Order: sequence, then C-alpha cells, then structure tokens
Amino acid sequence: MIQIYFAAGARLWPGYAAPLRAALDDAGIVASLTPDCADPAMVDYIIFAPGGDISDFSPYTRCNAVLNLWAGVEKIVGNPTLTQPLCRMVDPALTQGMVEWVLGHTLRHHLGMDRHITNPTHTWDPTCPPLAAERPVTLLGMGALGAACAHALQAVGFPVTGWSRTAKSVPDVALHHGDAGLVAALTGAAIVVLLLPKTPATENILNAQTLALLAPGAAVLNPGRGHLIDDAALLAALDTGHLGHATLDVFRTEPLPADHAFWAHPRVTVTPHVAAETRPSSASRVVIENIRRAQAGAPLLHLVDKSRGY
Amino acid sequence: MIQIYFAAGARLWPGYAAPLRAALDDAGIVASLTPDCADPAMVDYIIFAPGGDISDFSPYTRCNAVLNLWAGVEKIVGNPTLTQPLCRMVDPALTQGMVEWVLGHTLRHHLGMDRHITNPTHTWDPTCPPLAAERPVTLLGMGALGAACAHALQAVGFPVTGWSRTAKSVPDVALHHGDAGLVAALTGAAIVVLLLPKTPATENILNAQTLALLAPGAAVLNPGRGHLIDDAALLAALDTGHLGHATLDVFRTEPLPADHAFWAHPRVTVTPHVAAETRPSSASRVVIENIRRAQAGAPLLHLVDKSRGY
Repeated sequence: MIQIYFAAGARLWPGYAAPLRAALDDAGIVASLTPDCADPAMVDYIIFAPGGDISDFSPYTRCNAVLNLWAGVEKIVGNPTLTQPLCRMVDPALTQGMVEWVLGHTLRHHLGMDRHITNPTHTWDPTCPPLAAERPVTLLGMGALGAACAHALQAVGFPVTGWSRTAKSVPDVALHHGDAGLVAALTGAAIVVLLLPKTPATENILNAQTLALLAPGAAVLNPGRGHLIDDAALLAALDTGHLGHATLDVFRTEPLPADHAFWAHPRVTVTPHVAAETRPSSASRVVIENIRRAQAGAPLLHLVDKSRGY
Repeated sequence: MIQIYFAAGARLWPGYAAPLRAALDDAGIVASLTPDCADPAMVDYIIFAPGGDISDFSPYTRCNAVLNLWAGVEKIVGNPTLTQPLCRMVDPALTQGMVEWVLGHTLRHHLGMDRHITNPTHTWDPTCPPLAAERPVTLLGMGALGAACAHALQAVGFPVTGWSRTAKSVPDVALHHGDAGLVAALTGAAIVVLLLPKTPATENILNAQTLALLAPGAAVLNPGRGHLIDDAALLAALDTGHLGHATLDVFRTEPLPADHAFWAHPRVTVTPHVAAETRPSSASRVVIENIRRAQAGAPLLHLVDKSRGY
C-alpha cells in the first residue's frame, strides 16, 4: 500500500482530507493518507503547500514526487534538498476563478464602472465607452492561466496580445516573447494583466521604462505575483496620470501593511488575494491523477523545470 | 432616384450623414439623402428616431418603410398615422455594447467588487467568491440582446435561464415563458437582468411579488427600460436586505431627477443610460440593407409587429 504524506500544513488538512480520499477511491488507488509522518523513508508521495511541514526533503528517499497544492512554486523550487520531481498545481477551478477575476476587472476598467459606483456628485454623463474591440489588452505570462484569460478576453471582443519570457504556442493569440517582444507587447496597451510566475527574471518587469510604453490612461491588473511590479514606479506613473488605475491582488507583503501607499491611493484598488484560489475538490483530483500516473509509469502532469523555476 | 428623408432630428444628422452615404455607396444604391423634406409625397424611405421630425406620417403616401435608429419603438409604434411598415434597429454594435455592460456588471456583482473598490476601512478579507457555476443568472427578455447576453454569460460559466413573454427558441439556453414560466425563471435567481421591450404587458414586471422569488441577496441589473421595475417595491426589497443591490441604466424619467431616491441609496448604482448605444457606422449599414431589401422586393429585417408593440 502506498504512503501519501499530506505535508501542506494542519490548517489545510480538514478541507482536503475528504476530497483527497474521494479522489483516491475514484481512481481505484489503495493508499494510506495522513497528515503525520512517522518514517520519512516510507513516504511514496508528498502533498505540499508553502508554509507546509517540510524544510528538508532529503530523508524522503523513496518519494516519487512532491505535489504542490498551489500554482506558484517559488518558495520550494530553490530548496537544495529537493531532489524529487516537483509538480505545480494546475487546478481547473483556480483557472476558472482567475478567468472570472481578470475578465471582470478588465470589463470594469473598460466600461469605466468606478465613476458610476462612486458618484458622490450624482453626475449624469451619458458618454458611452468604445467597444472592447478598440481596447487592446496585453497579458504578460502565457502559462495555463494566461492562455485561458487570453481566450476569454478575445471571446468578449478585446484584441489580446500575449507575452512570455520564452517562445510559446497558444492557439489564436498574437504572441511575443523575450526582451524585444516585451516592448512590442506593451507599446500602446490600454489594459495590462500580469500572470507571470515569480522568478528572478520576472522581478520588477513592470517598471518606469516598461510602464512608459503603455497607452496614456492605461490600467494595470496584477493577479500574478507582487514582485512583478516596481511599486514606486507604479505610484509615480499613477501620480503623473500616465497610468489611469491599478487593481492589485498580490503584494510583496500580504496582508498588505496598513500603512502601505496602495491602500489610500485614489487610483489603486486593492483586492485581498482573491483572484483565484485552489479549490480542494478539483485540486485533489489533479494531485491523485499525478499519483495514478506515477504508479503507472506515465509522465507527470505540470512537472516543474527547476532550472527555470516554474 | 429614390428619396430618403432623415427625420431622426438635426442633432443626429452630422454623425449619420457620412456613414449612411458610405453604406448607400457600398450597396450600389443611388439615392437622395436629406434631413429636409420639401414634399412628403415624394419620400420613399424615412429614417426615424424618437424626438425626430415627424408626428403625422399620413402625408408620406409613397413611403415604403420607416426605419427606426433605436432598438426601442415604444414612442412611435402606437402612432395611429403610422400605416407604413416599421423596422426596429438591431445594431450589431449595440448588441456588443450591451453584452459588455451585462457581462461586466454581472461579474462585478458576482465577484463582490464594490467592497474592494470602496474600502474605506482598508479591510483585508481574503474570502474568495464561489465560481460562476454556482451563481444562477436569469434574463428577462430573449430578443436579440437577451440571447446574445445569455450566450456570453454561459461562455463564462454562469448557469443562465431565459424568459420571454411568448415562447421562443434560443439554442442552448434553458427557457421559460408566460406567467407560470416567470415564477420558475425568477425563483432562486442570484442575478436578474432585464432586457424586455417597453409594452403594457411588461410594465412593473419586477414588483414586490416577483422580487420575493429571487435568492436572498440577489442583484438586479436593468439595462432594458425604466418602466420594467416597480421602483417603490425595488427600494423596499433593498431596504429589507432581501435584495443585495440594483444597478440601473434606464429610468422612467431621464436624466434621473436629482432628488430621486436611487441616487443616494447605498445599494443602488446608477449608470446614465450607457449600457448600449446605436453606433452610426454599423446602424447605417443595417438601415441601408433594409432599403436594399425593400427595393429588391425581399422581406424587411426586424419588422415590428404593431399589435405586440415590438
């Protein structure tokens, strides 16, 4: 009987125990699943999340794979003791939640909703916004989340440009990559959505130079990672008016500290890391599918390339 | 040479003159197009809008069709002098604008954006909303606009129910019709979108009895017609908390009077009749296509059934 160690923290165990057992049953896998580990050398699979129960992976000598519950792996991928294969979470429910957040906030900025939601002077100004077809949207990051958002935005009528660090293939989306491609992707964009992973290469990718490329009055949406934005440069661009608004879901420090300038800035909307969350029922199926694959000798899904960091 | 009288008002003429002439050229139609009418008996087609230049249609004895620039025809359809065929506007750009407004405000309510957009206490509450699949949306009105919105909402993942006064066929949408169907369509709905035409049969269709059918905390979106809602019943349902929010784009009197309770109500968002507008370039093509059809003896598009009123 295989041994599965749920090392994602005691806080998550109550929500995951039943969905994981149900997914095991559905897959016909007989396993011991426990949030406690008596003997690391007996563990076949580790289910992990940042803030989980392992810092040294070296005693887990029999472990076939470490299965991360979150999409982001930046807190584990650089761990030198992690010699086992590592898989990211690509949760269809997390992807769906992200699509809803990105589509909703893109439409909010496109339609100029805020001036109606907060209209203290009760001004009746029947000026209609242009159609989505006249509002170019650029997505930085063309992984599972970026590609899903690109297709959803295109379906509503937005012209979408995607950028990734390395060349990718996403059907029906205009793509750029690399440093030169970044300039092309950002130039003239009216709405920019950040969906890159956290790696050294993506830190401060939105900075004074790249913000200057956007269309005047552009909006920035960041449901990706806090470190993607040079915060001071963002605030400066908002203050000059070059940038119209920023809606930020992720921050270098979370919860966002009470004295942070983002809270009080009239052109910043803080959403408290709600753009997308992993949901136990769907995430459990993904984790167990990878265990089924490993047991059958099939390739793992969403395997992390540790040299790239995602 | 056919005579086309632009009787939609001097205010609209500057925006429509060039697009209409371009559409005539594209259709290969040789015509005189003018905002002045020297002799009603010589007019072949009338282009009309509410507030236009004709109240008595009887002198236009040669007129083949009255082509309305707006989707709503309630201000002209009951005119007893109107014996000519009347066509509504079904403008693809108006439909697209409506889809964007409905999808955007549905996602806004679904995601609970307002508590982040206006967050004076800087509260960090990382509770995620459920996915769209758990938020049933009901559309009243299954014409061109309602059907387009239904498909767009379904594509994002919302379970959509459509209702129309008479039975309709809209592919892939769960449909109800008639009085009994209205109860079924509204019961348990979390978001209701009103896209019905203004007729005596639709007045106050959302009233104390029908509002009571909605799910607790439901949101009402009205981009249709102001008279569809019993305003006092809506305010009462908001005040008891049964209704969570109303976002209203149309009103019995527009602009909405400064002293109207909707302006100051914390659970009402007023958008100033911006959900959708007819756009001259696309609307001109629709108007001229109908003239081409009439000249060729083909059936007119979007012909109004005067007995139904739309």
